[in-house]
Amino acid sequence: MEVYAGVDVGGTNIVCGLVSSSGDVVYQIKRATEVSKGPDAILEKIAAMIEEAAVAYAEQSGVDISVTAVGIGLPGFVDPEEGIARFAGNLGWRNLPAVQKLQARLNLPIYIDNDVRTYVYGEAMYGAGQGYKDVLGITVGTGIASAVVNEGKLFYGFRNMSGELGHIVMEGLEDPCPCGLHGCLETYASASGMVRQALKALRAGEPSILQSWFPDDKLEKLSAADLSRAYDLDDPLAKSILEKAGTLLGRALSYAVPLVSPELIIVGGGGALAGDRLLTPLKEELYSRILPDYREHLKVVTALNNDDAGVTGSAMYAKQKYCSSSM
Amino acid sequence: MEVYAGVDVGGTNIVCGLVSSSGDVVYQIKRATEVSKGPDAILEKIAAMIEEAAVAYAEQSGVDISVTAVGIGLPGFVDPEEGIARFAGNLGWRNLPAVQKLQARLNLPIYIDNDVRTYVYGEAMYGAGQGYKDVLGITVGTGIASAVVNEGKLFYGFRNMSGELGHIVMEGLEDPCPCGLHGCLETYASASGMVRQALKALRAGEPSILQSWFPDDKLEKLSAADLSRAYDLDDPLAKSILEKAGTLLGRALSYAVPLVSPELIIVGGGGALAGDRLLTPLKEELYSRILPDYREHLKVVTALNNDDAGVTGSAMYAKQKYCSSSM
Repeated sequence: MEVYAGVDVGGTNIVCGLVSSSGDVVYQIKRATEVSKGPDAILEKIAAMIEEAAVAYAEQSGVDISVTAVGIGLPGFVDPEEGIARFAGNLGWRNLPAVQKLQARLNLPIYIDNDVRTYVYGEAMYGAGQGYKDVLGITVGTGIASAVVNEGKLFYGFRNMSGELGHIVMEGLEDPCPCGLHGCLETYASASGMVRQALKALRAGEPSILQSWFPDDKLEKLSAADLSRAYDLDDPLAKSILEKAGTLLGRALSYAVPLVSPELIIVGGGGALAGDRLLTPLKEELYSRILPDYREHLKVVTALNNDDAGVTGSAMYAKQKYCSSSM
Repeated sequence: MEVYAGVDVGGTNIVCGLVSSSGDVVYQIKRATEVSKGPDAILEKIAAMIEEAAVAYAEQSGVDISVTAVGIGLPGFVDPEEGIARFAGNLGWRNLPAVQKLQARLNLPIYIDNDVRTYVYGEAMYGAGQGYKDVLGITVGTGIASAVVNEGKLFYGFRNMSGELGHIVMEGLEDPCPCGLHGCLETYASASGMVRQALKALRAGEPSILQSWFPDDKLEKLSAADLSRAYDLDDPLAKSILEKAGTLLGRALSYAVPLVSPELIIVGGGGALAGDRLLTPLKEELYSRILPDYREHLKVVTALNNDDAGVTGSAMYAKQKYCSSSM
């Protein structure tokens, strides 16, 4: 059986899956990234995980497994044409020739790209975007990023740097962003941004059920999921944070829609788990600020395969690259 | 000699040019559109202009002229694949099968597209954008619109509706827009928008040299060029209007850059004639709001062939379509 390997490399975990050519994840394993061991150890781990998955799945299924190509989604700035990981802050990588190194080790066609692009590609082609030609995907996680898939092809822009939607400077936001700007969308509306806003309010003594769930010494454990839980109990702080984040996301998307005219917007990443708590204010803001011609046709949905989309997308991205290179 | 005909259809004039396959306009004529005579009369006029130009240029140059294909830039929503002018408010057209009708009359390959797209295509490929792969073009005229050219190809989006940058709703603007929204970028920052703001201020008695140039009964004659003239005399009203328009354009572009990552932004249309009066505040605002990685590489320029870009772009758009269809 021919499969594609899809690898999603994060600062905490590496997920490696075997994906059928129709986009189904047939086997998946997860390991700690262990960033401190350095880039070569991580690349070796990726190679070993692909081999391990192929052997384990062959044993489990009783059929021969052959990996046709490998797709890897990496954080940060990636140069897919040169196969170089230009800069990944949370991995500590800079100008790493990842494809060359892995190809020498695995003797397989290897393709890399930015992880948000491969994720959105997976969702656009094999998830919520199936059947749509013009998809804008946005991931709401530690940061906020985006990718455009148009007729089955990812949009890259100059130096492959399209998609930094999280760094749109929004009127009314003032917090500094690690990027050097102030008021970036992701300082408030990312999952981390929402948690940071909650912590700030809680420390300032704002009344909230979160004060009792997270006494001072446990405050650091607060997560975006806790905001959703508090929201469901009508907690005013959680509601105001999720609603403001949704509104800001909707506003930022209202700037994107006239430029690229998507038919479908997919909201993914950890933040998408908030579902309608985020999407209701998002849609309200978005639809109130776009031309009627857009409003009548544009759909906004959460990701379908949120957990697997990175692996599926990386693998299917490799399939697309491999097939177009061998035509 | 083989040439391409490029036609730029506006609400006031039709310009028809013959363009060499390297993008040089070799002959050009202009006629009044006469919208009131209806769509068939306008299409007949376009056909007659192409024939007239071919004959006149053959006589003038003494060489045989053969028109290979015709490209037409039309205002409003255009379906280039179906060859239908979906909606053009200032021509009064709705679902007009322009390509079919013209093909029957001229027996030539005809291609239509939105006029801003063909204009930006011309500038990106044969004007200020020569040598750049990722271009974002914006036209500042009666309205504001945009187009993205990526590796020589225009971006369309769902229902070919990408590019309505003028209808981004900007914080702090409140004027109603004919589109039904309030606070659209073009209500202030288009050439017409700037004039409208000036008229409002002048009628409210704001001090300006424009008060003496345009007494009440002549106020309607005020144009964007007059704002530039007054700006050069340090007129406070003209300065504040051009600077605010430039700032708003820069801010809107700061929303576009993270999404599509252009290497070059071309500012064209009548408003671009204001040059640095508009571009200085535009760049200041834009560069202060984008990631350092964009800031270091992004260039902003005015259009090179502002007058001819529509004709060149339409003709070269036809060349691209014709050549790719006959491959």
